[in-house]
Amino acid sequence: MSEKQKKPQKLKARLPRGFVDRDAADIRAVNEMTAKIREVYEHYGFDPVETPLFEYTDALGKFLPDSDRPNEGVFSLQDDDDQWMSLRYDLTAPLARHVAENFNEIQLPYRTYRAGYVFRNEKPGPGRFRQFMQFDADTVGAAGVQADAEMCMMMSDTMEALGITRGDYVIRVNNRKVLDGVLEAASVPEFKRVETLRSLDKFDKFGFQGVKLLLTVGRRDESGDFTKGVGLDEAQADVLLSIFAPGNAYRCSYTKEDGTIGYFEGSPDQIITNWDDVLRGHNDIGLAQFFGKPSQNPSLMALLNANVACRGNPVGAQGIGELLTMLRIFQDAGYGEDRIRIDPSVVRGLEYYTGPVFEAELQFAVTNEKGEKVVFGSVGGGGRYDGLVSRFMGQPVPATGFSIGVSRLMTALKNLGKLGQEEVVAPVLVTVMDGDIESMGRYQRFTQELRAAGIRAEMYQGNWKKFGNQLKYADRRGAPIAIIQGGDERAEGLVQIKDLIEGKRLSGEIEDNIAWREARVAQVSVPEADLVAKVREILDAQAEDRARQG
Amino acid sequence: MSEKQKKPQKLKARLPRGFVDRDAADIRAVNEMTAKIREVYEHYGFDPVETPLFEYTDALGKFLPDSDRPNEGVFSLQDDDDQWMSLRYDLTAPLARHVAENFNEIQLPYRTYRAGYVFRNEKPGPGRFRQFMQFDADTVGAAGVQADAEMCMMMSDTMEALGITRGDYVIRVNNRKVLDGVLEAASVPEFKRVETLRSLDKFDKFGFQGVKLLLTVGRRDESGDFTKGVGLDEAQADVLLSIFAPGNAYRCSYTKEDGTIGYFEGSPDQIITNWDDVLRGHNDIGLAQFFGKPSQNPSLMALLNANVACRGNPVGAQGIGELLTMLRIFQDAGYGEDRIRIDPSVVRGLEYYTGPVFEAELQFAVTNEKGEKVVFGSVGGGGRYDGLVSRFMGQPVPATGFSIGVSRLMTALKNLGKLGQEEVVAPVLVTVMDGDIESMGRYQRFTQELRAAGIRAEMYQGNWKKFGNQLKYADRRGAPIAIIQGGDERAEGLVQIKDLIEGKRLSGEIEDNIAWREARVAQVSVPEADLVAKVREILDAQAEDRARQG
Repeated sequence: MSEKQKKPQKLKARLPRGFVDRDAADIRAVNEMTAKIREVYEHYGFDPVETPLFEYTDALGKFLPDSDRPNEGVFSLQDDDDQWMSLRYDLTAPLARHVAENFNEIQLPYRTYRAGYVFRNEKPGPGRFRQFMQFDADTVGAAGVQADAEMCMMMSDTMEALGITRGDYVIRVNNRKVLDGVLEAASVPEFKRVETLRSLDKFDKFGFQGVKLLLTVGRRDESGDFTKGVGLDEAQADVLLSIFAPGNAYRCSYTKEDGTIGYFEGSPDQIITNWDDVLRGHNDIGLAQFFGKPSQNPSLMALLNANVACRGNPVGAQGIGELLTMLRIFQDAGYGEDRIRIDPSVVRGLEYYTGPVFEAELQFAVTNEKGEKVVFGSVGGGGRYDGLVSRFMGQPVPATGFSIGVSRLMTALKNLGKLGQEEVVAPVLVTVMDGDIESMGRYQRFTQELRAAGIRAEMYQGNWKKFGNQLKYADRRGAPIAIIQGGDERAEGLVQIKDLIEGKRLSGEIEDNIAWREARVAQVSVPEADLVAKVREILDAQAEDRARQG
Repeated sequence: MSEKQKKPQKLKARLPRGFVDRDAADIRAVNEMTAKIREVYEHYGFDPVETPLFEYTDALGKFLPDSDRPNEGVFSLQDDDDQWMSLRYDLTAPLARHVAENFNEIQLPYRTYRAGYVFRNEKPGPGRFRQFMQFDADTVGAAGVQADAEMCMMMSDTMEALGITRGDYVIRVNNRKVLDGVLEAASVPEFKRVETLRSLDKFDKFGFQGVKLLLTVGRRDESGDFTKGVGLDEAQADVLLSIFAPGNAYRCSYTKEDGTIGYFEGSPDQIITNWDDVLRGHNDIGLAQFFGKPSQNPSLMALLNANVACRGNPVGAQGIGELLTMLRIFQDAGYGEDRIRIDPSVVRGLEYYTGPVFEAELQFAVTNEKGEKVVFGSVGGGGRYDGLVSRFMGQPVPATGFSIGVSRLMTALKNLGKLGQEEVVAPVLVTVMDGDIESMGRYQRFTQELRAAGIRAEMYQGNWKKFGNQLKYADRRGAPIAIIQGGDERAEGLVQIKDLIEGKRLSGEIEDNIAWREARVAQVSVPEADLVAKVREILDAQAEDRARQG
């Protein structure tokens, strides 16, 4: 034994790479936010349902972007019966499994929501975590695009319920069928389409030139890492960029004689004088309703451009028809261009989408890590995934859904000052002057009396012998009040109550640029029986002060 | 391509073994329950903090019971930098890592709480899941047992905040030092102690004989699986059973001349006439306060027995002193024997406990799967773990905490009828009579008007062509009201409102044994402008009916 008695190697406390601890402010902010989201979803008639964090790997399927990573982007392990299990990478694939497994018990359409952690086995980076929370809503068993339209409206209502002003957000809508039509018209071969779409989804990350490189020969990032290109030729890339690059969607396009796409100069109002003529092919769905200046109808403008780009491709035309239906529903239900907008540049990276896709984008400006002003960008998205449940079923089961990135949305709300309104007051601290068992019991009784009266309170639990440490603790904890009882007070049945906020103010530690008021007494001595009432009185006065400061 | 065109193998939708999906009722019940727990913890001055689901395997340590399982009870995988990571098996070990990693920023004592999923890589069985939720509170940096006493009082308050009547629960308290003292006095060798304690923790599972087999030669269960015994001899096992078997703790024990432990016959009141004499060794902590009949002081009775069993062992005596201090705090703060009780048979399976241990036990009877009446049992527990943070630190960091098993407590509350009080009304269904784009927009508008007025509502999202399916959906969904507008009503600007609850009642599908009242009209036709007001009126009438039914 003695020969092995080396000093034991001290264990290093460290978080696994790409994971984070969450502090009280973060947790309270997420709770406040998810409660508001939940309320909107419940209002729309959705009910909660949850799945576990593990699924059998085959049930999850391979729909993840960046699948060129080890383990293909997911965390997997083998169970003791040799079956492979993975931690879910989103909340949609597990929902599909849940619906298929319980298909006979479930009443369709099945409208549910859920919040939960998902995992990505990716290279961690700044702001890129391997565990994060999503908040999803899905409608399964609804084939019509009215279900997709509802998702978009629900997201719009959610943004507003969270306090985001109209104009600071927009729900952007597109359709995979339109994308397919355009790719087909541009002769992008089948096997290159997924990678093409993923590249087109990266304008916000890599800009126009970066996306062009991804579409063609490949791109090397600042760290020297190389991402392989899709391998399209220059001409194909130019056609796609002319349609999908941000801003192009709302200009007036036409097909040139050489087959490439050109843009009219000047305002669309001068070029398009009659919508009905322009959208003749779709006037069966009541386009007359949309009359007005084309410049005020960016969604229709975008559909028109998509129509040009699809060059009559039937899948593309079907997608455009679906978007027109959704547009009509938005208008009738009172959701204008300022809330929901058609935008052909919306792609969404996940492979399982089959129809409408949508994205909630925050449009206010923030400063990025390079010091540039940029729009905040996407906080969530979704779309129609008609094939995902069907994989298990041997029959078609249409579905659509929306997923919010919880921590990204929370960051946005913090930027806007829309979170943390709910005030959490730190506990009243009952200090310990004497550590004998009788005194301890008495301090504990004070504490329980405060709690019983609904006041947040704690007895000091550290080493009581250094009283200074107790006041330092109260200070760093932000305790509003300290309760003190030494031997003398005890003999007289008194307690001292110290107003720590007022004390700070009087000692000048707080800048007194607030409205002048008469100073409170920062410390009072009261009979034990009056403890609770006096503490309540001071807390109320402090709350009033805070309210006065705004 | 054509030679590979076999029919694709249909994927089987199935949950991994030992995992479950959670339905709306379960999720709502857990939310209701955890909100109440959170309120108590906040009141006690605890703040939330959370860690991720993964930790490095070495940081978690090996403190799990049943470590004879593959992977030693945890789910582990190797990261791409070859480090082993594991899913947390409890919330305590990750908290220890968190505190150690952020030691310089954290103000001690550090009082926090958290709810989250934990994972056990165990053989799944009925009611035994591999993912479950715990709700923990911990105080780190508090060496005195007043912190443990606070944990017990907080658990007592939590039980009552959840609506559990005093008498239906009890917080049982023991001390690992007392256990160690008894084991030492019984000459159980060091290396057998952990297994001995784990065996002594299983009276509720395996009964007196089962535990005796575990302590000695081993036990074969009904399925034929064999669990190895600790290997104590018959005499050692008898001594331990005489102290730890349920019921023995509160009888009057003494040391016989041959060194074994015997019990006095008759009531302790007849045997013990003077507590002070009996507990002479501890009268420095004011035992005079406890005077009264011994039969009314089961906690002191238990300490007396423990004292006998420890036979003067110094570690045991220290543990008994700590329990006496806690007992005094409970009494002074108003927590009597009916809420918190000393019980030397409390063990707790986890290896990291070093001092006081406690358990929240529900005492009302339930019927188990064998049809027997049994007490519901433990819903949570905890204790002092002074070594867990220290592993990382090279300095002592005392800590204590409590963990609630969320789904077990929820089952208990359901048994008691204390959950699901919060009424969730299913959404009003706006049916779809016509699928043209204009009608669809109109139905959607009705739906949004209801939602805007704060009424839970949805438009039917399935195939609208079979109207019967829509009413069947409304019925299975429990929708209170259906909104209907066909071509005729539309022409007149009217909507039909169908009271589905009253409709059921009138058609006799609901047994009408409730107080008689005049029937409402089950279907009315109102102008579109009156839709919201009329729906509100019917919902209010339905709510009133429900209230009348209790």
